[in-house]
Amino acid sequence: MEGFVSEMLGTMILIILGDGVVANVVLKKTKAENSGWMVISTGWALAVTIPVFIFGNISGAHFNPAVTIGMAFIGSFPWSNVGIYIAAQLIGAFLGAIIVWIYYRPHFNATEDKEAKLAVFCTQPAIRDIYSNFICEFIGTFILVFAILGVGNTKMINGLSPIVVGGIIWAIGLTLGGTTGYAINPVRDLGPRIAHYILPIKDKGSSDWKYALIPVAAPICGGIVGALLYKLIF
Amino acid sequence: MEGFVSEMLGTMILIILGDGVVANVVLKKTKAENSGWMVISTGWALAVTIPVFIFGNISGAHFNPAVTIGMAFIGSFPWSNVGIYIAAQLIGAFLGAIIVWIYYRPHFNATEDKEAKLAVFCTQPAIRDIYSNFICEFIGTFILVFAILGVGNTKMINGLSPIVVGGIIWAIGLTLGGTTGYAINPVRDLGPRIAHYILPIKDKGSSDWKYALIPVAAPICGGIVGALLYKLIF
Amino acid sequence: MEGFVSEMLGTMILIILGDGVVANVVLKKTKAENSGWMVISTGWALAVTIPVFIFGNISGAHFNPAVTIGMAFIGSFPWSNVGIYIAAQLIGAFLGAIIVWIYYRPHFNATEDKEAKLAVFCTQPAIRDIYSNFICEFIGTFILVFAILGVGNTKMINGLSPIVVGGIIWAIGLTLGGTTGYAINPVRDLGPRIAHYILPIKDKGSSDWKYALIPVAAPICGGIVGALLYKLIF
Amino acid sequence: MEGFVSEMLGTMILIILGDGVVANVVLKKTKAENSGWMVISTGWALAVTIPVFIFGNISGAHFNPAVTIGMAFIGSFPWSNVGIYIAAQLIGAFLGAIIVWIYYRPHFNATEDKEAKLAVFCTQPAIRDIYSNFICEFIGTFILVFAILGVGNTKMINGLSPIVVGGIIWAIGLTLGGTTGYAINPVRDLGPRIAHYILPIKDKGSSDWKYALIPVAAPICGGIVGALLYKLIF
Repeated sequence: MEGFVSEMLGTMILIILGDGVVANVVLKKTKAENSGWMVISTGWALAVTIPVFIFGNISGAHFNPAVTIGMAFIGSFPWSNVGIYIAAQLIGAFLGAIIVWIYYRPHFNATEDKEAKLAVFCTQPAIRDIYSNFICEFIGTFILVFAILGVGNTKMINGLSPIVVGGIIWAIGLTLGGTTGYAINPVRDLGPRIAHYILPIKDKGSSDWKYALIPVAAPICGGIVGALLYKLIF
Repeated sequence: MEGFVSEMLGTMILIILGDGVVANVVLKKTKAENSGWMVISTGWALAVTIPVFIFGNISGAHFNPAVTIGMAFIGSFPWSNVGIYIAAQLIGAFLGAIIVWIYYRPHFNATEDKEAKLAVFCTQPAIRDIYSNFICEFIGTFILVFAILGVGNTKMINGLSPIVVGGIIWAIGLTLGGTTGYAINPVRDLGPRIAHYILPIKDKGSSDWKYALIPVAAPICGGIVGALLYKLIF
Repeated sequence: MEGFVSEMLGTMILIILGDGVVANVVLKKTKAENSGWMVISTGWALAVTIPVFIFGNISGAHFNPAVTIGMAFIGSFPWSNVGIYIAAQLIGAFLGAIIVWIYYRPHFNATEDKEAKLAVFCTQPAIRDIYSNFICEFIGTFILVFAILGVGNTKMINGLSPIVVGGIIWAIGLTLGGTTGYAINPVRDLGPRIAHYILPIKDKGSSDWKYALIPVAAPICGGIVGALLYKLIF
Repeated sequence: MEGFVSEMLGTMILIILGDGVVANVVLKKTKAENSGWMVISTGWALAVTIPVFIFGNISGAHFNPAVTIGMAFIGSFPWSNVGIYIAAQLIGAFLGAIIVWIYYRPHFNATEDKEAKLAVFCTQPAIRDIYSNFICEFIGTFILVFAILGVGNTKMINGLSPIVVGGIIWAIGLTLGGTTGYAINPVRDLGPRIAHYILPIKDKGSSDWKYALIPVAAPICGGIVGALLYKLIF
């Protein structure tokens, strides 16, 4: 139960801040309009760091089924808890997206571009190419999970580890994020996409369900392979 | 007395640096003119981190009535000291704003835009909508206080905690700051607004008193609810 | 053998992230297109920090022949291992560049500028001047190796040192990187250049072999002198 | 003697990186041309952090007469060593500026703007107003010295303190740097100004000696007052 609440609230805060930074940059008339990739990637890094600080000691702060499943594959997390963790993460991501919509509502109303409105919620590839998009999300999540486990292997002082996890997200966003928008987390994409589908957003467009499988399936595959490679090496 | 001086000087430095970064970016002819949201949000984060480092051990470095009142609500700070802390914070914020005006005086004189001059002192919403503006300041401060208390719950090495508090401010500014300008602190807005009202700024406009209640009331409500949720969970 | 795998995988990740950030900024139609020097220099800093965190305890995380040779010169690394380390680093850099090409393939195809495509892989000087280009790479690597050894001399808490190494890369990139593109590492330039030469990149141009010697020779010289000065002082 | 070498080399590296970042942004045809205030202020922060890491344990890493004199005033540094420290700092700053000129020589040659060339070496006010310029340098250095001493008062883990000092520089640059260019250090301005005066820079303009006194005198005054206030409070 503690784990459920922690994963749910943590993922909710992650999405409030993460989808929030996209809203801040892509919606019209905000003070940060068009402030660019540095703002987006730094915002997403901190969107992960902050809830990891708060909930790290309670649930391990996965907030991401690719991490949960990857760790279960190598025996670092009990399979029996995988379902409840993923459910908590998905609900948290869904709730977080609703709060972002409430928060930025006047700016959603001031924005005409339907794709920009969808971009606040979930990822869309810069160039649509199923094969290549899968590879990007696979490699990104592979590096994420391999790095998180590898860094966790290091002796580290209390309190530094959430900063390092944030640094991994920062790195992936800055260097590999510009192709598919780095979901690298199934619920980060699916939860807010469901919210976009359901919410009465003014003049909204398609929720782009035909792309929705990629940022769910590729991160899970990448996370499993990343965890296995970690296990093989360390 | 020690607490009073510490809260006053700390909040003063916070406003010198925080209002300073806005002046640096929005006033005319500075070397950082129009340097954007990354500069503003990073500057505000450090504006909090630096005085927290200096005064953290003396007064706890609240610098914010929403933190002081929130902590009093859950029994983490004595109600008897709340008044003196808030008075110190308000005076510090007022003095800090005066110093920013003195510091940037030639650039105030070189700037025609009355709203830009007011923006150095206090917040104005990007889209004026009382209901939505309240929600933004409420949610922003809710996250601020919940995160500060949650992080404080973590075992952390000496000297890391002010950096983490700065990270929370950085996160909120980058991801949620573009709607109302993230006051998330009653005195951060009210103290400099009073200074704007009083100071003989060249060609100044209205101090926008009709908006002044939002960035005072909403952060206090958000801080209380954030503190209560923290208490409920941990 | 452990050292070989660690240096190879670490340098591979370094190049995936490092060449990745260049691709993200200079190739067409990415979400980070033209996002500028702050993104590039921060991305490269994290590209080093992350693998140093993961592999630091295994091989010392050189990832750079200038570091390996410099340390061998002052007796801090056995000469007998220098060859295998450099081989691992070169193979890792080559493999990393191939992965970046696979990752960004649709964006390579969407980019006409042949120099931009080469820039993803390896460095080119902003102003071609053999003498001056050599000096830049020499001084940059001198500072890199001197600073890494000097910082290593400091008592430091577990887990902070990879962040500081990243800070050194960040510093060099921001302040000295704009002339030659700061290879400051022979394999970082040579490995990806070989990959550029071999890979069937659409409409690729010259691999600029006539420049290739500078970012190999100058960093080795600079690294040796930096290590010797460190030895002299400390 | 150890202190002399440490202060000289440290200040030299500080100026190589610090004047380097200005060259990187303001000179023509660099890869970082016009990359803005975020690059400049982050570069300067790291320009201080790196040598503080390397030389902190040897000489205390002042690199700044305003710090040295301020500490002497409150009895934290022996007056008998003040002269030799300042001499070392001035020589280091002068040598660093020469290295920056050698490093960026083709870009100096490609730049026509005489003020941009001078800006690489030393500060010029955005709006020339002796009284106001003095106040800016005074307040900036006041905060610098007060914050350094205040932070030094905190119990801090090994290795974190140079990062915090860099954070103070980052804060001052981002928030207060755009008026006079934040010398906040007499030798940082005077040493490179002498170099500009002496070096055979192509098509150079005036070294602006009529302004040179402000960034020497104001930081010393600000540093002394900052140190005294620290003494008074702690």
